Amino acid sequence: MISAENPQTPSLVKDAPDGFLLPDYLSQRQQVVVEALDASISVVYPEKIYEAMRYSLLAGGKRLRPILCLATCELAGGTVEMALPTACALEMVHTMSLIHDDLPAMDNDDYRRGKLTNHKVYGEDIAILAGDGLLAYAFEFLTMQTQDVAPARLLKVVARLGHAVAATGLVGGQVVDLESEGAEDITLSTLDFIHLHKTGALLEASVLSGAELADAPKKMLEHLSQYARNIGLAFQIVDDVLDVTATREQLGKTAGKDLQSQKATYPSLWGIEESKQQAQRLVDEAKAALADYGEQALPLMAIADFITARQS
Amino acid sequence: MISAENPQTPSLVKDAPDGFLLPDYLSQRQQVVVEALDASISVVYPEKIYEAMRYSLLAGGKRLRPILCLATCELAGGTVEMALPTACALEMVHTMSLIHDDLPAMDNDDYRRGKLTNHKVYGEDIAILAGDGLLAYAFEFLTMQTQDVAPARLLKVVARLGHAVAATGLVGGQVVDLESEGAEDITLSTLDFIHLHKTGALLEASVLSGAELADAPKKMLEHLSQYARNIGLAFQIVDDVLDVTATREQLGKTAGKDLQSQKATYPSLWGIEESKQQAQRLVDEAKAALADYGEQALPLMAIADFITARQS
Repeated sequence: MISAENPQTPSLVKDAPDGFLLPDYLSQRQQVVVEALDASISVVYPEKIYEAMRYSLLAGGKRLRPILCLATCELAGGTVEMALPTACALEMVHTMSLIHDDLPAMDNDDYRRGKLTNHKVYGEDIAILAGDGLLAYAFEFLTMQTQDVAPARLLKVVARLGHAVAATGLVGGQVVDLESEGAEDITLSTLDFIHLHKTGALLEASVLSGAELADAPKKMLEHLSQYARNIGLAFQIVDDVLDVTATREQLGKTAGKDLQSQKATYPSLWGIEESKQQAQRLVDEAKAALADYGEQALPLMAIADFITARQS
Repeated sequence: MISAENPQTPSLVKDAPDGFLLPDYLSQRQQVVVEALDASISVVYPEKIYEAMRYSLLAGGKRLRPILCLATCELAGGTVEMALPTACALEMVHTMSLIHDDLPAMDNDDYRRGKLTNHKVYGEDIAILAGDGLLAYAFEFLTMQTQDVAPARLLKVVARLGHAVAATGLVGGQVVDLESEGAEDITLSTLDFIHLHKTGALLEASVLSGAELADAPKKMLEHLSQYARNIGLAFQIVDDVLDVTATREQLGKTAGKDLQSQKATYPSLWGIEESKQQAQRLVDEAKAALADYGEQALPLMAIADFITARQS
């Protein structure tokens, strides 16, 4: 986990371009995002639900989705301020998906990011409602807080966010993931479906919504879409590899969980080495999609590299 | 439950104005809404989640929220077509709240509208995801499908819907409801908080969003807000009374549930007769708020009357 307190050493980021330090960039952006998230929810009556939402929303994490949204808004000529409410909404939605995924009826996880999961602290009923509350609030928040964006463009972002979360996106991916658990022979195309939906859809929405807020041209949206799909799958492959190779301390959650639950993973299909190579190939393709944008795409390039280099 | 197959007899509707037949109106509008809901979700891969969402979305019910939305849009000079996507979104959100409320970790109900609850048919994991999917899709659907409404007005409706569902609305109401279960002395103000949020917030959003889509003047929105709050509470009081007096067959769900779970209800605070009188008083106030609008408000007036007259 990257955080302001614990930045990755620059040496882990391969090919980091001269003059651009990803750890500094990430920790600065994480701070902006965390401050905005902290301010987005106050604790009022009934306190328990607001505390439960804040507990998971502010429990750390890489803040990759909001940071991608801010970065693509800037790439397309917009500002951080313009994209910050959408960036927060993306993290709210992501947090909802983690809270609900961890429930006993789903993945039944006790730890997340080194802390007890939401339902272990607040109970299953409140955890379900905290997820629902974050999901609904995400739409209200981005709609009410976004400034200097034409309403028609903002509506596109609302639709994109909804599409990325619904059965066409992460909900659909989670369903196939649950159905595949313990199944004998999961094909590569099923595994790709799971991750293109469960992780990929919201990552793509993060990348595209930032650019859309700044009215990016169609060609740029296509390039960013390629970038997003490739880093999304690479991210998941690396996640699967780390589940096998990293310790619980590094991950902040139960390690070896996939093996234990007989979950189909990329390493189980390809082995560790081939998985690492596939992830690297996807990252290279992601970077190639942004070749036209020169220095302005440096943060996105470095984030792509970071995905294969990360240790947790 | 009112449906095209089983309309309430007109005699149950007190003071029905000449020439306006609420049962005909409701069954015609229910048909419009059900057809639109049926068309809103197709079953594609992964089929199970789409089937689960359709199971609860098309499981009957009064369709009161969508019908209110269509009625206020017309009252404010708009059309049914203009409000239909928002009307469907309101029913999707309402359905999500029912699916999640019925979960074992929440109210643990086996029956809803005379049918097995979502998790009894599809399992808890899919029921949680079906709720999430409906909630996210509601926002995508209303944003993508609404036509002939200015984007800025549509954004207001998105924000209103989010606010009505989040911790500021039905989620907050459900939290206080859960906290109050089995508690010794629930005050009237706590009970009002629960229902103004758990039921009232989405009813108010239904009433106001329809009018907002048609750019209703501020004064009309204030009147409609009074109307909505009053029918919302009246609706809940009647619900509580029916839980004591009606049979499971009439309700389509377990009767006497509130008593069994020691839930605070209006009849437990006031007794049956006083509860009925309070509901009638609220309905009268709701109707008084619309006194300025003459014949155009007939459907809303009749719906208010229907709330106290209904048997299920």
